[in-house]
Amino acid sequence: MGKKVLVTGGAGFIGSHIVDRLLNRSDMEKLIIVDNFWTGLKQNLTHIKDQRMHLETCDVENFQTSEKFDEIIHLASPASPPWYMREPVRTIKANLVGALNLIEMIQPGGRISFASTSEVYGDPLITPQPESYRGQVDCTGPRSSYDESKRCTESLLFEMRRTAGIDLRIVRLFNVYGPRTRPDDGRAVSNFLSQALTTGELTVYGDGLQSRSWGYVDDIVDALERYFWLDQIDYPGPLNVGNDREISVLDVAKFIADIVPGASIKMCPPIPQDPTNRRPDLTLCRQILPGWEAKISYEEGVRRTLEWFRDTLMSGASSDAPDPVRLAG
Amino acid sequence: MGKKVLVTGGAGFIGSHIVDRLLNRSDMEKLIIVDNFWTGLKQNLTHIKDQRMHLETCDVENFQTSEKFDEIIHLASPASPPWYMREPVRTIKANLVGALNLIEMIQPGGRISFASTSEVYGDPLITPQPESYRGQVDCTGPRSSYDESKRCTESLLFEMRRTAGIDLRIVRLFNVYGPRTRPDDGRAVSNFLSQALTTGELTVYGDGLQSRSWGYVDDIVDALERYFWLDQIDYPGPLNVGNDREISVLDVAKFIADIVPGASIKMCPPIPQDPTNRRPDLTLCRQILPGWEAKISYEEGVRRTLEWFRDTLMSGASSDAPDPVRLAG
Repeated sequence: MGKKVLVTGGAGFIGSHIVDRLLNRSDMEKLIIVDNFWTGLKQNLTHIKDQRMHLETCDVENFQTSEKFDEIIHLASPASPPWYMREPVRTIKANLVGALNLIEMIQPGGRISFASTSEVYGDPLITPQPESYRGQVDCTGPRSSYDESKRCTESLLFEMRRTAGIDLRIVRLFNVYGPRTRPDDGRAVSNFLSQALTTGELTVYGDGLQSRSWGYVDDIVDALERYFWLDQIDYPGPLNVGNDREISVLDVAKFIADIVPGASIKMCPPIPQDPTNRRPDLTLCRQILPGWEAKISYEEGVRRTLEWFRDTLMSGASSDAPDPVRLAG
Repeated sequence: MGKKVLVTGGAGFIGSHIVDRLLNRSDMEKLIIVDNFWTGLKQNLTHIKDQRMHLETCDVENFQTSEKFDEIIHLASPASPPWYMREPVRTIKANLVGALNLIEMIQPGGRISFASTSEVYGDPLITPQPESYRGQVDCTGPRSSYDESKRCTESLLFEMRRTAGIDLRIVRLFNVYGPRTRPDDGRAVSNFLSQALTTGELTVYGDGLQSRSWGYVDDIVDALERYFWLDQIDYPGPLNVGNDREISVLDVAKFIADIVPGASIKMCPPIPQDPTNRRPDLTLCRQILPGWEAKISYEEGVRRTLEWFRDTLMSGASSDAPDPVRLAG
């Protein structure tokens, strides 16, 4: 008997890459994708013809089924500040009420994997951030619906593990970018690329010296593939996954302005509660996933993403953009 | 037209005191109490004969009504570590899914008040703790269901205020004790009193030097009464409410061993993730609630609580205790 797998947010940026990898597995019999297309896009899945895949267009918190799954991968959530700040209640429901719904659907002995975030560290006072760092999140602030619902979902799942013994894999992802990001996503790399290809004016908020660790999606999904479905791993998380090369937002803008003819940079007022720095301590990741490394330099990753954005913007995809405010993710 | 008020957890320790105060209000027409008697007790309400009060025995997250309320006071949650650690999923549901349910029941222009906790500060690195301190909570730890669901509920309500303009009052309560605490509550004062009156052996965990700020319930409810229902206050919270006299757990045990004949202290191994210190910075509280002070010394409060426990234990009330582990709250 093959495995039954459920992926929430499977039409999203990272989700659709995970789906591609899952479909390479010969031990998988059935793959259910739950997505409400809030930030996910149908075109992220249109290349898939595999009969094992079934798409359910539904909010994860409202999804109902009598089936039980061997593996559940919970990715449903907006990940970009303008999107979650516009609908904070819905963000909390997707993450936490979604997880409460999903824990009822795990086969006995089954596994739940969850994409948490480096945002659980808030505006960190130490760098790089190890998993043991408890973070500095303002739980009443304008970014809190995302940060706190990720934290509380980690808590829910860890407590389910402690009290009910569920098999768990939690990752904390650091700024992922690459093909299939929505052009209107609103975070730095995608924003700069969209702007470079349209208005030509790259908007940098604050002094641009806030740093991020930009992880190219192929590298990140390589790590997730190993971590989420290798049975021999006996570590529930949380596990930092990202690229530990730290680069300022301004440097990314400059690089893109250099490679796209006619693009220039415009400095704008700072965004409230934009973290000043973010860099993963990958010590544990290298222990748990030996041999894995982020291999794609940001220069190469940005070039690849630029090509993808060029094709996508040419074809006129994506709409339903939030307010045009950009909040560096 | 008088006010319609909803109190969740109204049969609980603090909730039932709030209900007593609410019934003194002549502007209140109808009071609905929602309580599932998980940690609340029917006997906390049996003295009330007021026709305006209606009790709904129901989980707050499942409560349904077509009524809308002018004021909602959300207190439903266990507050003692052994209780919430035994049922973490239920704890998250009571706080957060409860709040998600309640925000649909507010009259336009109505107010929601929420009892958050000093546990949002985790094991604090600064003392006393001002409301601006972002805390040090382990979001994967054994106490996290309570700490993180309180944090995430604060986030939900603040984001509802930011995006939908709801009227909000959030308090962070520091160790409250007094009459109507369950004798099997499991936190330090009630535990010591129960032990002093039964086995005679007061169990202190670790070195007993972990400090707390013990707030006598009458003082605390005086503050809540002002903050939750005075219209002229224009501050949504979070507001620390407590007694800022910091006393070690061991000193409380010694005091009780002194006043109860035959009682003695037994030192036990430490409890995981028991915060080392906890003391409110009350600067903001004194500005927002001028004239309010915690007036009852802990010596006086403990004596009053002892009398109440003596009466209660004599009458044989309360059962359904969790595992006997004590976790200093």
